[in-house]
Amino acid sequence: MKGAGKPGAKTGGTGGIITLTTDFGLADPWVRMMKGVILSINPSLSIVDVTHEIPPQDVNKASFFMASIGRYFPEGTIHVCVVDPGVGSGREPVIIQTERCFYVGPNNGVFSTLDSRVKKSVVIKSRRFLTAEVSATFHGRDVFAPVAARLASTPVEEFGPALKKLVKLDRPRPRRRKDGGVSGEIIYFDRFGNAFTNIKKEMLRTAGAARAAVTLRNLEVRGVSPFYRAVPKGTPGAVINGFGLLEIFSPDGNALEEFGLKTGDRVSVGRARKRPR
Amino acid sequence: MKGAGKPGAKTGGTGGIITLTTDFGLADPWVRMMKGVILSINPSLSIVDVTHEIPPQDVNKASFFMASIGRYFPEGTIHVCVVDPGVGSGREPVIIQTERCFYVGPNNGVFSTLDSRVKKSVVIKSRRFLTAEVSATFHGRDVFAPVAARLASTPVEEFGPALKKLVKLDRPRPRRRKDGGVSGEIIYFDRFGNAFTNIKKEMLRTAGAARAAVTLRNLEVRGVSPFYRAVPKGTPGAVINGFGLLEIFSPDGNALEEFGLKTGDRVSVGRARKRPR
Amino acid sequence: MKGAGKPGAKTGGTGGIITLTTDFGLADPWVRMMKGVILSINPSLSIVDVTHEIPPQDVNKASFFMASIGRYFPEGTIHVCVVDPGVGSGREPVIIQTERCFYVGPNNGVFSTLDSRVKKSVVIKSRRFLTAEVSATFHGRDVFAPVAARLASTPVEEFGPALKKLVKLDRPRPRRRKDGGVSGEIIYFDRFGNAFTNIKKEMLRTAGAARAAVTLRNLEVRGVSPFYRAVPKGTPGAVINGFGLLEIFSPDGNALEEFGLKTGDRVSVGRARKRPR
Repeated sequence: MKGAGKPGAKTGGTGGIITLTTDFGLADPWVRMMKGVILSINPSLSIVDVTHEIPPQDVNKASFFMASIGRYFPEGTIHVCVVDPGVGSGREPVIIQTERCFYVGPNNGVFSTLDSRVKKSVVIKSRRFLTAEVSATFHGRDVFAPVAARLASTPVEEFGPALKKLVKLDRPRPRRRKDGGVSGEIIYFDRFGNAFTNIKKEMLRTAGAARAAVTLRNLEVRGVSPFYRAVPKGTPGAVINGFGLLEIFSPDGNALEEFGLKTGDRVSVGRARKRPR
Repeated sequence: MKGAGKPGAKTGGTGGIITLTTDFGLADPWVRMMKGVILSINPSLSIVDVTHEIPPQDVNKASFFMASIGRYFPEGTIHVCVVDPGVGSGREPVIIQTERCFYVGPNNGVFSTLDSRVKKSVVIKSRRFLTAEVSATFHGRDVFAPVAARLASTPVEEFGPALKKLVKLDRPRPRRRKDGGVSGEIIYFDRFGNAFTNIKKEMLRTAGAARAAVTLRNLEVRGVSPFYRAVPKGTPGAVINGFGLLEIFSPDGNALEEFGLKTGDRVSVGRARKRPR
Repeated sequence: MKGAGKPGAKTGGTGGIITLTTDFGLADPWVRMMKGVILSINPSLSIVDVTHEIPPQDVNKASFFMASIGRYFPEGTIHVCVVDPGVGSGREPVIIQTERCFYVGPNNGVFSTLDSRVKKSVVIKSRRFLTAEVSATFHGRDVFAPVAARLASTPVEEFGPALKKLVKLDRPRPRRRKDGGVSGEIIYFDRFGNAFTNIKKEMLRTAGAARAAVTLRNLEVRGVSPFYRAVPKGTPGAVINGFGLLEIFSPDGNALEEFGLKTGDRVSVGRARKRPR
């Protein structure tokens, strides 16, 4: 990392990369204020925009981003997440250190699932790491940005006392049925209208994916395809996607729109019936 | 700053950071052309995207971004603003140096309010700092990007003669009334539908903010809240926001949509009446 | 370039800049996964977002971005383009090296037009440059990102065998008519509703641009203007734009909406008639 010290030296082992995930959009000045605060404290840090397009106050979607972010960035990266409808109220500002990296943001469920075991977690209390005046409405700039910038060269413990309890969201879980099949649901749509389910590839291997029947609503999908264009246009298909999750798609199309799917739709994987209707 | 020299040396005291604020969006290739031009001239510069989502040709909104950008970035930062409906016509391309930083863009009102006193300002005239061929429609790439890149290592004076007059937009101003209250108006909505007024916190302290009544349209808001969730859901609230401005909001909601507000709506702050209706 | 070696040394002459052009949008985690993969392999690389707002699976629009990207970035820059509806199927992942820079992406037409002569091109085959497990749906992360990161320090030949045939899209071509005029069509609209034609300025000079009549649909535009505001508001105008192409615009307005234009509309340039109707 340019300008960043060796692990354990000036950057506290963080490597000097800070990622930003927010619901601020880019049409307002919030994000650039955060960047300005970070670079004013330490201009040698590298800032990576993850997304600022989380739907306003959608803690659940933010937690989906946080769940998978850790393993793709270098060890020691500092991941800042500001989706924070409770800003200024009782919710705690926190730092979580896992075996791999650091997370900074509100303790409201955005850190429900992380890349690995939590090693340390603190409530941000020490005012000397914050901006001189902390506003009631914008902790992204006044708390999380300066803390992230300083975390690159300050041990986690110095920011405040140990966190008592990390808030976790209730998440629908897939389950294995008695008949050997798997039941799950749609949890996310991406930009292409692909429907992610909460069924992981590990659950499917046992169920015999290539020969499986995937059913949802009035659709039956026969087998898990190796890639999108393996099924004819206009036909629903299923793949194991880049997250390792079962995904329902329409090749060169938009499954969300074409098949009228929505979040929460039940998805069932089982043995293909003889005569699907 | 990585690669950037000491103040006064190779980077002319600028620190090597260039910020970009435009109305180009990101779906067209304009922004990347500007970045390419800047990095081709000096690859050690750091480019920070502020926003490219200013509504097309909205000089007023751009000026709002410029008014507050200076104090959040390191001293010497070069702020480029290209919202430029008059490109190619008589409007002057300018560089403004304040006590804190540099601004590069068209002299059309986008620099109406800046962070601090103007020290120097010039009209960009010297062709040796521009691209070899200057188009009629895209000074962002052909004038402002190369000038910003070269400004990192060239004194302001070399770019052209002194600017005669900095164009400033007419701005609504809040006023203190005879009864001790304050009258202002809504000047901006952010992504969350929060309504910014032009009433600064300094004006409110005198008016007794916590006990004040804020009235607009048929709404009466009682007191300025310490944070968003201090008022019940569905109720309008008022806070001092991250800009130090009085802001009307709906907790966990969207004030713009829920209360039918619009830019220019008059906002009045006074003593709470006995029986508000 | 910070952290990047001298041409020919650790960065294989690439300069250490990687640009990203995709149709992933920023509301999903795809782009940040690509960035994470790149920085994990080589944290000294600089990543420049070109755009992630290519309409989903619009290979044609992506090719428009690729056609002009090369000349604006420093020599040796690595341009990654992931607009890839055929991911996982037979289409080849490729690296193209031109006299000026490098291109990484699918061989599906996105590289139809490049900045200069192709020096080398290979099909990416060698698995040691990819992520450990290659998914069927996300080669942006599993193939193109790691290949781009490693291309900064590895000769092109090592990635795989020579490419047989670079796929090129059929493109409408402007033509000179017997009467000396030029016929072309609208190929692109930008964010402002400006209509780009496929008629290059070189073709117009011969045709006498300033005195020319540009006709399309029921519109007649008299002469090519030096800049946008040279024609009255509400009137269609024509300029040579920042791409060197003839462009139809509405000053301070939106030509696309106001004049009901669409891609493919025929545009004709000729001598102005005596009495235009």
